[in-house]
Amino acid sequence: MADESQKWVLLVTARTPTNIAVIKYWGKRDEKLILPVNDSISVTLDPDHLCTTTTVAVSPTFDHDRMWLNGKEISLSGGRFQSCLRELRSRAGDVEDKEKGIKISKEDWGKLHIHIASYNNFPTAAGLASSAAGLACFVFSLAKLMNVNEDQSKLSAIARQGSGSACRSLYGGFVKWIMGKEENGSDSVAVQLADEKHWDELVIIVAVVSSRQKETSSTSGMRETVETSLLLQHRAKEVVPKRILKMEEAIRNRDFASFAQLTCADSNQFHAVCLDTSPPIFYMNDTSHRQKITYFRIISLVEKWNRAEGTPQVAYTFDAGPNAVMIAHNRKVAGLLLQRLLYHFPPNTDADLSSYIVGDKSILQDAGLEGLKDVEALPPPPEIKDNIPSQKSRGDVSYFICTRPGKGPVYVSDESHALLNPETGLPK
Amino acid sequence: MADESQKWVLLVTARTPTNIAVIKYWGKRDEKLILPVNDSISVTLDPDHLCTTTTVAVSPTFDHDRMWLNGKEISLSGGRFQSCLRELRSRAGDVEDKEKGIKISKEDWGKLHIHIASYNNFPTAAGLASSAAGLACFVFSLAKLMNVNEDQSKLSAIARQGSGSACRSLYGGFVKWIMGKEENGSDSVAVQLADEKHWDELVIIVAVVSSRQKETSSTSGMRETVETSLLLQHRAKEVVPKRILKMEEAIRNRDFASFAQLTCADSNQFHAVCLDTSPPIFYMNDTSHRQKITYFRIISLVEKWNRAEGTPQVAYTFDAGPNAVMIAHNRKVAGLLLQRLLYHFPPNTDADLSSYIVGDKSILQDAGLEGLKDVEALPPPPEIKDNIPSQKSRGDVSYFICTRPGKGPVYVSDESHALLNPETGLPK
Repeated sequence: MADESQKWVLLVTARTPTNIAVIKYWGKRDEKLILPVNDSISVTLDPDHLCTTTTVAVSPTFDHDRMWLNGKEISLSGGRFQSCLRELRSRAGDVEDKEKGIKISKEDWGKLHIHIASYNNFPTAAGLASSAAGLACFVFSLAKLMNVNEDQSKLSAIARQGSGSACRSLYGGFVKWIMGKEENGSDSVAVQLADEKHWDELVIIVAVVSSRQKETSSTSGMRETVETSLLLQHRAKEVVPKRILKMEEAIRNRDFASFAQLTCADSNQFHAVCLDTSPPIFYMNDTSHRQKITYFRIISLVEKWNRAEGTPQVAYTFDAGPNAVMIAHNRKVAGLLLQRLLYHFPPNTDADLSSYIVGDKSILQDAGLEGLKDVEALPPPPEIKDNIPSQKSRGDVSYFICTRPGKGPVYVSDESHALLNPETGLPK
Repeated sequence: MADESQKWVLLVTARTPTNIAVIKYWGKRDEKLILPVNDSISVTLDPDHLCTTTTVAVSPTFDHDRMWLNGKEISLSGGRFQSCLRELRSRAGDVEDKEKGIKISKEDWGKLHIHIASYNNFPTAAGLASSAAGLACFVFSLAKLMNVNEDQSKLSAIARQGSGSACRSLYGGFVKWIMGKEENGSDSVAVQLADEKHWDELVIIVAVVSSRQKETSSTSGMRETVETSLLLQHRAKEVVPKRILKMEEAIRNRDFASFAQLTCADSNQFHAVCLDTSPPIFYMNDTSHRQKITYFRIISLVEKWNRAEGTPQVAYTFDAGPNAVMIAHNRKVAGLLLQRLLYHFPPNTDADLSSYIVGDKSILQDAGLEGLKDVEALPPPPEIKDNIPSQKSRGDVSYFICTRPGKGPVYVSDESHALLNPETGLPK
């Protein structure tokens, strides 16, 4: 057993946001290094509503690397974790904590083992880019623990090797993942286009769709699209580069009409190249019809409303998972959107409105919705008055999350928030 | 009133098949002349199961052009009819029927009026290319009546101006619509690649999907795709030309694996460019969810089976309408397909199998299905045994039509089959 002076545990805790792409990443040109076929742009979501918290620890008493996700131990042997760990260990520096009497020289990192505990403040299985936030937090917290002396952009390239879209979670606000040109991937990094304060009137509403389904692996889906779609290369080489420039301009100018048009068009084109894959990818699981229907209903709801108003009020975007993400121009529009969403997708009659709308609940008050009675009394939106659907989609959405563009990763200095016990290095 | 010698009515009756594209037509480069952005290839369906019958008549007693569709008078003022009529009248020749004492000189056609009665032996609203068969029959029968001295290919260019895909219904078997280069559309014609006997083992099963919905107009859908999809031009210029060559080769060599792969991929790519349209086109009507679900279920059924067998057994293709068309390699495969379709889409329990499977019912016997009992007793197909769907889609399909590649238009000489009364020129 190690002597008393060797019983220390060194901890770092960090919190990292999730992100939603408005110009999509779909297709790798290098599977091992995770290098994409095109640039992508995302909005970082407010970590108060959607984030991963991770505590990493090192101690000479640890005899192998271990990880817990939401309290359950999981294997670290996967390539995604190992790639990140290898990169981080090779860049680790000297660490000294005089107060605790700890001294680690950079050569020690090859022998020391680590513990990692990670927790999502949203359902992991819900397909809300939990792997993006998770891998970003993994890299961000370990980089601090190991005193990796690299800037955020270099860290994004490490996170990228864990999960492509994780690199975009290293920044707040509006983020571009530059595909890069180098074969070794060194220039395939994320950069911040603008911080979350630049365009803070936007409101983001996520519809979490009921599903017991495991998501289709996006890794194999992307591979099949790259191998079989005859439209993907055209998208990657001709369409996306122009869209990236337009989207950067729309964000710079806070031009919502252009932002919404590009966001919706790119979501639809991403699903188009999935459909152009052989066999076609389109939520193909037999039992996920509810997701497909919700997809069509939400597109239809937003398109009709935008058309009726003459200018886009709301943008929609769908990732490979089942959830819908809607971005409203401002709080007023978000209230009107919530009215429409609750009209079409009312909660189950035994539900509680405050658990059906989570996150920034103040939008509910703005929309004049204080309880289920107000929801049941909602009139049909004016744009559908000639074509009121015969059925409402009660129960098809599990809940809605109201959120906004948010900030990037932060370290949590208060040790009481750590997920690992500072004495044992095991989950609290 | 006309004198006795002027009371004659001259009739022609013809029957024209419908067709299903295996390389799709979607997008016009000239809306008025109906010139497509790419070549397309179709299979003509057996007119015994799906066809339009049209009787056209001319008489000096007719005081204006009139038309009846399925017994109901409809307006002939639409551009599609008028384009064809103008083209036909300008090419009309002298007609003489000595027996009846009729003599029409080509100059007379400008003053004479015509009656047209048309009847589909399948539901018009079912979206089974009724306009293709209808316009083809319109042109084919009037060309005979008016003694238009043009070959089938020139007639196809006239039918094209009524309804694009109508040009392909002027031939039996396997037909290519050449997009052409001329501005006036003179070289945008259909040609026969092979007749129906060339590959007569194929069996075609059409799933007619229950729907009270009017189809989205393909004219406006195509226009929106041409105007907004950034993938369509790439499809038209780069993808389709290569697919056309491969499809011609597959048909020439009766290479089912290649035929099926190309057919499915092109159906999926057609739906991909529809999804890439702004707003996206994908059976967007609120109430047609059943069609969307059937679309995914049938693709999933065929893809799973083909994958399990290691080589394609069946090709699927979907037009803009709600129906699914499946092409089976041969009769044996068609029997197995029917078993699978009836397992997943059983008829309503009060239905009668012989009205649920129409057309060539002998496939039913081959599949060992003599009554509803046999259908209810069908075991799950082996390829889904680990993933049996919790719900069958009872009632989602109205009926199935079993058919095959068929012959082109024919004249019906037996006047008892005419749809117009030879004395009055009015519907019988």
